[in-house]
Amino acid sequence: MKLVESAKLLKVLDGAVQSPPPIWLMRQAGRYLPEYRASRAKAGSFWTMCMTPELAAEVTLQPIRRFGFDAAILFSDILVVPFALGRDVKFEDGEGPSLVPLDSADGLDCDPGAWKKKLAPVYDALTLVRATLDRNTALLGFAGAPWTLATYMAAGKGSSDQRAAKLWGYRDPQSFQALLDVLGDCIAAHLIAQIDAGADAVQVFDSWASGLPARAFDDWVITPTKRVVEKVRAVHPKARIIGFPRAATLQGYEQFTADTGVDAVSIDTAAPISWAVDRLGKKVAVQGNLDPLVLLAGGRALAEAVDDLLTATRGTRFIFNLGHGVVPEIPVEHVAELVARVRVGH
Amino acid sequence: MKLVESAKLLKVLDGAVQSPPPIWLMRQAGRYLPEYRASRAKAGSFWTMCMTPELAAEVTLQPIRRFGFDAAILFSDILVVPFALGRDVKFEDGEGPSLVPLDSADGLDCDPGAWKKKLAPVYDALTLVRATLDRNTALLGFAGAPWTLATYMAAGKGSSDQRAAKLWGYRDPQSFQALLDVLGDCIAAHLIAQIDAGADAVQVFDSWASGLPARAFDDWVITPTKRVVEKVRAVHPKARIIGFPRAATLQGYEQFTADTGVDAVSIDTAAPISWAVDRLGKKVAVQGNLDPLVLLAGGRALAEAVDDLLTATRGTRFIFNLGHGVVPEIPVEHVAELVARVRVGH
Repeated sequence: MKLVESAKLLKVLDGAVQSPPPIWLMRQAGRYLPEYRASRAKAGSFWTMCMTPELAAEVTLQPIRRFGFDAAILFSDILVVPFALGRDVKFEDGEGPSLVPLDSADGLDCDPGAWKKKLAPVYDALTLVRATLDRNTALLGFAGAPWTLATYMAAGKGSSDQRAAKLWGYRDPQSFQALLDVLGDCIAAHLIAQIDAGADAVQVFDSWASGLPARAFDDWVITPTKRVVEKVRAVHPKARIIGFPRAATLQGYEQFTADTGVDAVSIDTAAPISWAVDRLGKKVAVQGNLDPLVLLAGGRALAEAVDDLLTATRGTRFIFNLGHGVVPEIPVEHVAELVARVRVGH
Repeated sequence: MKLVESAKLLKVLDGAVQSPPPIWLMRQAGRYLPEYRASRAKAGSFWTMCMTPELAAEVTLQPIRRFGFDAAILFSDILVVPFALGRDVKFEDGEGPSLVPLDSADGLDCDPGAWKKKLAPVYDALTLVRATLDRNTALLGFAGAPWTLATYMAAGKGSSDQRAAKLWGYRDPQSFQALLDVLGDCIAAHLIAQIDAGADAVQVFDSWASGLPARAFDDWVITPTKRVVEKVRAVHPKARIIGFPRAATLQGYEQFTADTGVDAVSIDTAAPISWAVDRLGKKVAVQGNLDPLVLLAGGRALAEAVDDLLTATRGTRFIFNLGHGVVPEIPVEHVAELVARVRVGH
């Protein structure tokens, strides 16, 4: 028998409405926090923080201590999966990550025995956090989705139009499918290992799901995500999974909701919240979608935007979040105001 | 009495279905063409080409000579409006345009007498092109929309998240509204002057319409565009106007179609064409939306994508185009194949 969870976020994922809604923010452990910047300076590099359990656990917990968010999300990076697959991943300050571009899936090794050892620090960090964290706070693991990881692996870096991955997919659909498949296998294994290590739920980030023609969205976002969800549920039938096909079309979000099997869909800033509650909220919990830049702006615009979201989502399964990650320039005072307003304003 | 137009594109804008559909491509006059690169090298700078009627006319006509597109679009730039408003605009090779960032609308001068003189070369170029162009080929003028021009003027350059304009709008809505108003006045005057000079229709590019929360989309995209359309129609009641709120949400496209008064809506690559035909096509002509990267890829993916579009739009008021501009790397042979397939394939 499943215990009734005490964390609000898990209750929402399990089917309950919570008022006020649980709140956490994408990239809540990050450079906008002075204590994060101090940890980062001490660690010396982003990658060292990701790969040292005590450091990753520490920065994961920092925003919880300061703001009492309803969820902690493990401090890590979506590129740990390509790293575990043997790709050389570099994080240079101010440059974004880079890896050697790839044009074939041949030789990519998804032997869990070998590569899970490389990611042991990630799982150890989760176990450390779970041991410290109050049961009222959910612990989230995460991974990049196959399509988004493919865009990084094909281009060797983030790109605004996903050109390298699209060209690969358009010119050689079979070989690109092979890449998505091996990535899906590893992503599923990585999510399973995170749940084993203590994650209460996981989020799958498809950060580059925008700009895809309908046929490509089907083949590269919907189908691979569904496959990952099925593989995770084959091991953990009750695994809680949040999907974030960022800036999909509204029809894309509906299809994602109907077809992939996720428990919640995180929506970007432009997706109208009343539409989301109406069209997605009957099947899944909705997460989102405050503009990070309204959080940066603060003041009346922030108050108004928060109230709009709370009003539109009242009585629904909703998780308060941003439509995208926290940007480093956001004042911590604005985040404190946001959390306070969500908690009293509902 | 209005003459029946002979150009297919104008027939579609005026309410008729055309089979095969008219075709032109955003940024069809550009670096993918060897003859454009030769003209550009001779002129010395992008801006010189924009501001020398004979040069602008020549590059406008190049893609018509080579491919016989159904429309020529004037070679110019959306930043001619800030330029005419007295802002210093710089185009550096490989850098994108830049201007001095702005944080107030005070002192922006929209006296048409003064600034239209600065744009006389643009209008002269249109008149030159119209004199050369066959009546079966439509001539398009264009302008950036108020919101998109505001994003450039606030940031001083293009930006991926429109941070400067968003912050201005969130923090000081009244002053930002004043900026949008003065831009709207100038944009309308610029479109009117282009129609006076020989443009058969005009397109309004809102290239940065994505990522806006619903409330901001209303205030910064819908309302200012509606105002521009009304001002143009006050002078030219039958002015044909195509709107392109690029990567708006599907709900945003519907609202744009219902509220702004445009004759056609151009849709981005991700907007499903069958949805567009169904939901927008009853009120306006639909233009779009082949992925420029499938045109770059060529081969079977291109043929399939073209056929998908032709099939979905058969019997509707449709203008074949891309979902975004031509990229410089696209082989001219792929463009020739595209045009041939559209013309025989329907």
